[in-house]
Amino acid sequence: MKVYGDMQSGNCYKVKLLLSFLQIEHEWLHVNIVNAETQTPEFLEMNPNGKIPVVVLDDGRILTESNAILGYFAENTGFIPSHRYAKAKMYEWMFFEQYSHEPCIAVARFINKYLGLPEARLEEYQRLQPKGHKALAIMEHALIHNHYLLGYGPSLADIALYAYTHVADEGGFDLNCYPNIQAWCKRIEKMPNYLSMS
Amino acid sequence: MKVYGDMQSGNCYKVKLLLSFLQIEHEWLHVNIVNAETQTPEFLEMNPNGKIPVVVLDDGRILTESNAILGYFAENTGFIPSHRYAKAKMYEWMFFEQYSHEPCIAVARFINKYLGLPEARLEEYQRLQPKGHKALAIMEHALIHNHYLLGYGPSLADIALYAYTHVADEGGFDLNCYPNIQAWCKRIEKMPNYLSMS
Repeated sequence: MKVYGDMQSGNCYKVKLLLSFLQIEHEWLHVNIVNAETQTPEFLEMNPNGKIPVVVLDDGRILTESNAILGYFAENTGFIPSHRYAKAKMYEWMFFEQYSHEPCIAVARFINKYLGLPEARLEEYQRLQPKGHKALAIMEHALIHNHYLLGYGPSLADIALYAYTHVADEGGFDLNCYPNIQAWCKRIEKMPNYLSMS
Repeated sequence: MKVYGDMQSGNCYKVKLLLSFLQIEHEWLHVNIVNAETQTPEFLEMNPNGKIPVVVLDDGRILTESNAILGYFAENTGFIPSHRYAKAKMYEWMFFEQYSHEPCIAVARFINKYLGLPEARLEEYQRLQPKGHKALAIMEHALIHNHYLLGYGPSLADIALYAYTHVADEGGFDLNCYPNIQAWCKRIEKMPNYLSMS
């Protein structure tokens, strides 16, 4: 199995982290998005949307969209609750991540860390700050009384949201404002077979 | 069971459409987003993210995020494939919808239909056009050889993507450019218990 990705991208790293937790062997192929390696004809053949991560299974079948990939590999593991409501709450967090968290925190981080906060994107960067803080505040509130986002144990919701949250400072978001998120990050980092981003 | 939503919002309509397909009884409570009814303290108590749709189950438990709600109600129905890979492909389309389709097509439609294309948002509206067309082109390509997005029959992927696609013209996207999408829309509209948006 091949995984095309960039470990510094939270969307890719979350896949790598789950594969590490589950000890699933794979070949990791680095893709440089700043050099437009996701826009070549060969890459677009794999994923017409031109995004990483992309998984190519041994039989050639392809999977894209980081959170769908997580769902595939976690099938029948403890990372997906078997109960219908809990499973829906897990996906609720994962759709929240892709709609209300990643487009703010990951994009602010990209503008700052990858592009060096250019003048042309400063206004966009500043506009993303309150939106990113709103997403973090929602997580912080959910973690006041719970060790993990679903309450009882780590699930894909935690893996999906940990990816960009634990490096949110690189997008200008000070995690010292969020003590429950910080404690949750430490909890994830102590899990067996945890793998750091860098 | 109560569902808070606005039938003109694709994210809400997709829930209503699935509930109709599955003939699940519910009370529909209209929420006006333009009047900021999703930002009241009472509403934010239900969904701190201040978005519709919101489902309140009979026991008071709450679900948000349209595609997570679809997953909850479609559990153990033919709308979710049982095979692991097909299920992952279904979620792939649903995450694609929330990340690469809705933020372009639904937002362009909102700017045009709800706000009346104000000068202040014209540039944003124009910037969304190529992005929305990219999402539609990906769907069009997938539907060349398949009747539904997963190939063999309607799934949540079709319901999730139909919601905003069939009214994409209200966001300035001419569906005449996409004959396979148009045929797919007609196929969905012929399904038993189909319910139109208006």
